Amino acid sequence: MTNFDRLFSPRGIALVGASSNLGSVGGQPLRFLTEYGYAGRVYPVNPKYTEMKGLPCFPDLASVPDPCDVALVVVGGRHVPGVIDQCGARGIAFAIVLSAGFHEIGERGADQQKALDAALARNKVRIIGPNCIGLLNLNEHIHAGFGGAMSNRTLRAGPLAMVTQSGGFGLGMVAAGDQQGIGFNYVVSTGNETDIKATELIRYLLEREDTDAVVAYLEGSTDGHGLLDIGRRALELEKPVLMWKVGDSRSGRRAATSHTGRLSAGAALFRRAIIEGGFIEIGDTDDVVDLAQYLSYRKRAKGNRVAILTLSGGAGVLVADLCEQQDLDVPETSAETIAKLRPDTPEIASLTNPIDLTPQGYGDSFAAYTRVIETVLAAPEFDQAIVRSAPGAIAAAWARGFIEVAKRSDKPVMLQWGSGAERNQEAFDIVRSAGIPSFLSPRRALNALGAIYRFGVKINRHKARAALASARPVGPQALDLPAGGALGERRSKMVLARYGIPVVREELIAENEIDTLRAPALAFPLAVKIESPDIAHKTEAGAIRLGITDIEGLRTAAHEVLASARKYRPNARIEGVLAQEIACGTEVIVGAVNDRYFGPVVMFGLGGVLTEVLHDVTHRFAPFDLATAREMLAEIKGAALLRGYRGAPALDIEALADTLVRISLLIADHSGRIRELDINPLFVRAAGQGVVAADALIVLNEEFGR
Amino acid sequence: MTNFDRLFSPRGIALVGASSNLGSVGGQPLRFLTEYGYAGRVYPVNPKYTEMKGLPCFPDLASVPDPCDVALVVVGGRHVPGVIDQCGARGIAFAIVLSAGFHEIGERGADQQKALDAALARNKVRIIGPNCIGLLNLNEHIHAGFGGAMSNRTLRAGPLAMVTQSGGFGLGMVAAGDQQGIGFNYVVSTGNETDIKATELIRYLLEREDTDAVVAYLEGSTDGHGLLDIGRRALELEKPVLMWKVGDSRSGRRAATSHTGRLSAGAALFRRAIIEGGFIEIGDTDDVVDLAQYLSYRKRAKGNRVAILTLSGGAGVLVADLCEQQDLDVPETSAETIAKLRPDTPEIASLTNPIDLTPQGYGDSFAAYTRVIETVLAAPEFDQAIVRSAPGAIAAAWARGFIEVAKRSDKPVMLQWGSGAERNQEAFDIVRSAGIPSFLSPRRALNALGAIYRFGVKINRHKARAALASARPVGPQALDLPAGGALGERRSKMVLARYGIPVVREELIAENEIDTLRAPALAFPLAVKIESPDIAHKTEAGAIRLGITDIEGLRTAAHEVLASARKYRPNARIEGVLAQEIACGTEVIVGAVNDRYFGPVVMFGLGGVLTEVLHDVTHRFAPFDLATAREMLAEIKGAALLRGYRGAPALDIEALADTLVRISLLIADHSGRIRELDINPLFVRAAGQGVVAADALIVLNEEFGR
Repeated sequence: MTNFDRLFSPRGIALVGASSNLGSVGGQPLRFLTEYGYAGRVYPVNPKYTEMKGLPCFPDLASVPDPCDVALVVVGGRHVPGVIDQCGARGIAFAIVLSAGFHEIGERGADQQKALDAALARNKVRIIGPNCIGLLNLNEHIHAGFGGAMSNRTLRAGPLAMVTQSGGFGLGMVAAGDQQGIGFNYVVSTGNETDIKATELIRYLLEREDTDAVVAYLEGSTDGHGLLDIGRRALELEKPVLMWKVGDSRSGRRAATSHTGRLSAGAALFRRAIIEGGFIEIGDTDDVVDLAQYLSYRKRAKGNRVAILTLSGGAGVLVADLCEQQDLDVPETSAETIAKLRPDTPEIASLTNPIDLTPQGYGDSFAAYTRVIETVLAAPEFDQAIVRSAPGAIAAAWARGFIEVAKRSDKPVMLQWGSGAERNQEAFDIVRSAGIPSFLSPRRALNALGAIYRFGVKINRHKARAALASARPVGPQALDLPAGGALGERRSKMVLARYGIPVVREELIAENEIDTLRAPALAFPLAVKIESPDIAHKTEAGAIRLGITDIEGLRTAAHEVLASARKYRPNARIEGVLAQEIACGTEVIVGAVNDRYFGPVVMFGLGGVLTEVLHDVTHRFAPFDLATAREMLAEIKGAALLRGYRGAPALDIEALADTLVRISLLIADHSGRIRELDINPLFVRAAGQGVVAADALIVLNEEFGR
Repeated sequence: MTNFDRLFSPRGIALVGASSNLGSVGGQPLRFLTEYGYAGRVYPVNPKYTEMKGLPCFPDLASVPDPCDVALVVVGGRHVPGVIDQCGARGIAFAIVLSAGFHEIGERGADQQKALDAALARNKVRIIGPNCIGLLNLNEHIHAGFGGAMSNRTLRAGPLAMVTQSGGFGLGMVAAGDQQGIGFNYVVSTGNETDIKATELIRYLLEREDTDAVVAYLEGSTDGHGLLDIGRRALELEKPVLMWKVGDSRSGRRAATSHTGRLSAGAALFRRAIIEGGFIEIGDTDDVVDLAQYLSYRKRAKGNRVAILTLSGGAGVLVADLCEQQDLDVPETSAETIAKLRPDTPEIASLTNPIDLTPQGYGDSFAAYTRVIETVLAAPEFDQAIVRSAPGAIAAAWARGFIEVAKRSDKPVMLQWGSGAERNQEAFDIVRSAGIPSFLSPRRALNALGAIYRFGVKINRHKARAALASARPVGPQALDLPAGGALGERRSKMVLARYGIPVVREELIAENEIDTLRAPALAFPLAVKIESPDIAHKTEAGAIRLGITDIEGLRTAAHEVLASARKYRPNARIEGVLAQEIACGTEVIVGAVNDRYFGPVVMFGLGGVLTEVLHDVTHRFAPFDLATAREMLAEIKGAALLRGYRGAPALDIEALADTLVRISLLIADHSGRIRELDINPLFVRAAGQGVVAADALIVLNEEFGR
């Protein structure tokens, strides 16, 4: 992993293509770097000048003195490869290339892109961009780029970092956040990502101790493994990546492609990586502003049981609805707590959570409301509290007592401002300076609380799994796989069996054994199928017979199946005829693929219409443990069918989960060779009676270099 | 329908329970009504005083002079019934009862509630409340209530009305809206709704010409018919009701009940009414603020094709994503338009919608960007445009040109502020005063645009239907129904047949005819079932046999079925045995109920797992037309199964839609008698081959007064 410390905190910056026109792309960074307080050295590079803005101007990078850690490149696109060579020769580790006109403009930029790729290949230089707007380090007043928001000298510094694939939009977010009290430390626009990828920068910034969270604005990424790694690390560090992922719609994808020529991993697995890892998905600057309040609030709830305290019945109803939408529980107040609350509450108050003192209930006595909050925070049935403030006029006086109560409790408290509060700046300031999250909008308040709650759930799950580090149910198995192509049904099931997955009992009958065949060691009724690596769709080939009840029928069926197969595909390699016991149970489908970007992934779905029409399937990155497999089974929409629907017995969920784990190990152990794997159907029997794979198909990657 | 003009614009208001303590509940309205500019007469009523705040104080309502249209009541709960009697005697048409302590506090308030009900029954007085916080008419400076936001004298007036079941929360919304430039005219808090319901007030305010929209904050309502009527009328008037519906969660429902003791129609049908009618569902004050910009913008798009113009590629991607999420189309720019754009756009610009000039593209020449916008607005492939503003520093200068272009076009334009814009108040003011909707947050911008677009779609659909006013496929049919209970299968299907719905061919065989039975006029194979109004679950009773292939089998099956039925339920009334042809096709379920609050409703779902486990069903209020029935068939998740899934032939969707229409007429024509109706299964055959009801059950309401 590259150490980017000197990229973000360079001791000196060479500005290649510097301009004395301070409004131009080459002039803006010269102005920012010399006027905004950057403490390092600035070296304008431009052969036409010897001096610029009072600084010596150098003809090339070779003549730039030490220290110089970064070249900020604003020359025309065709000159960029030469500048990279100069960086390499001079030993400048990083270049930030603002220049455009590479593969993002398609055919027209192809030659320039090729030249840039070649320059990068022959030099030990790492570059940001091209086609980016630069980098900000607000702690050290480094504005190394151009454009509207980059020129804003007064942007506040704060504990958030940002990696953005859209410079304009990302910097706009910085500016909008600044207006709402949110500060960033490091902000980097990645442009085309010809070399350094957004994921690499996210990973680096996540590790920095001066960063509370990384905001990522991504149009796409092919670094699936990097995303998975970031997700894991964010959970370990208990520090979220706030992921704003765009470009998933048809026209959005089209726009992203023409924006930076960027490819991306598929949207479904990308979202899966966000769900599984230490990401919080966002979709607005408001989300960052709201989450930032929680990121700086160190109290974490022990559970999801929320007490709602309000002076407005309507607000109580609304907040209760919003809590449940966020998977937070609003349990009833215990009789013991109610007894403690009675002396401080008016008769018309409603004390079963939401606890509503009513607008007539508090009178002028906001002290009673504060005592009620203290009693509720002490109650063991609640893990956290959402408090609606006293209204406008008395909000400030009330807030002074409230923050003391909130500080004394080890449970988190969130404030939702009541009516008229938007006029009471004093009350706002009191609560804000106490560090207590507070919101005008109940919806925004609960969206943020819900996101933080779910992030905590993911952290806990990650810890639990790391602690268990459950032993594999089966070790890595050597498989004798051919060089490429598809394995036939029988060989595919032999692979499954190596990983301990039950398969139907079957026998392969060679063509010349058919007429002399004696009773096989299988229980009738049987199915008879062609066994050929060249016939994947046996039903279509007419090469399958079901319900064979005796040896005579078996012989007849075997001949028929052979004849059909030969007619369907005369040149097919035929290994024989498969006689197979007929399994039964509930049909499910288990699949696995080796995704080009994310690596091995397992899919599970109920068979038939549910999978094919309703797309009721779920995915996990492989390998995974039993707890994950159980989650998969619980989260499909048709999960009730597994648990025993309409009086049917519950199915063997444990055996099914175990099979998913084994498949995840199989695909992960052999991700270099197995491209796709399908068990369709896998029959699931009643609880305790296991599962059995009735048909399977494995498709291999060609084995290179064999 | 009551005319509420005098409630909202009273010529005089009697304040019953007035207090000279101007901070108290009885003193606040006295202060507001005398100090804020109300032009009507104010009459304090309190037997303890002869004068209050410089006004004569009256001992009772009888002594109050004319004109007096409203009594504002703040006396203790036990005195309220007497005040209502005084209103009745004095001829005061309306009372606004702020007093609490009625059924909202449960048992403790029951006696007072009963007394209030009785007083209302014996007087021609209509009341708002009790347990409300009052009414605002900001046009006429009437603050007839109490509490924080009610006391705000500077609230701006505007074209929105509000009906709120939570006074505190509703008034908070008024105050928060005021801060963001949104004004209300009439605001009413409905409290317990012992008499006047929120729906009645919404309906009234919707009709007022000085109202652009009604904001409704509802915890629940039993006035389903009123909601449906409001929804229709809002579409006719092309004026939306912005519906904030809370209380749908478990704890939210609990809170709503304890808040005002309110019952409510079920959440699913409530939401259905919102979807079908002229409602826009909201969930935050921000939504009102955002929608208000569109309500005052009179340009309406002719279609859903959006052009996106931006200087930030990232913003283009994001806005394109958001458009598709809102069912808006982002088509590619035509070659003709691109040719027109070329002279005004830099080489690196991307002109396939989103049209991205890039941050380097516009230079200082914002005039070129304005010309590009004009060209795009003229292009026939777009119905409307979303424009991202030029950034901070030049935003104001650019905005002057932009608003001229936007005004000249008859297509709607929406502005999304670009980076740095939050610092440019001048630019904001230029765009706002031009009346062009503009937003800082792309998400909020598109949420509002999407809501307005869908409202327009509903209006157009409503017009199309009203214009067609399609003839009923079948007239109202007289049905010979028994007094109550369930109809047996055969009689239920006879009812269906009266409405022209195909049913399976069948014959009823009396018990004494079985042994002498000759071949029936039905095609074997047959099913045999018991026919009894007392046995609804024939399978459970063992009173069903399938696959009968000859007359002998029919006789045997008939005896067996009779025996099983008698064993299952010895006292069952048995009408005979039903011999039935066996239908086939794809199973679907059609149901209808007479909802207590909303009246007749039809349900459609695919059979089996899809309905029972995945709850893949859809509802419509009855009666409805073919277009609506087709919508139902298209919107279930498993719709692909009807269209012909995996090479299966498409099913007879037209016949199925026709059946749904007939069922909707049947349940609507007989809503007084039929409580429930189920066809399960209805078999749907391939296109052109119709449908057939294989089993049906109708449950009747008891016929009162027969």
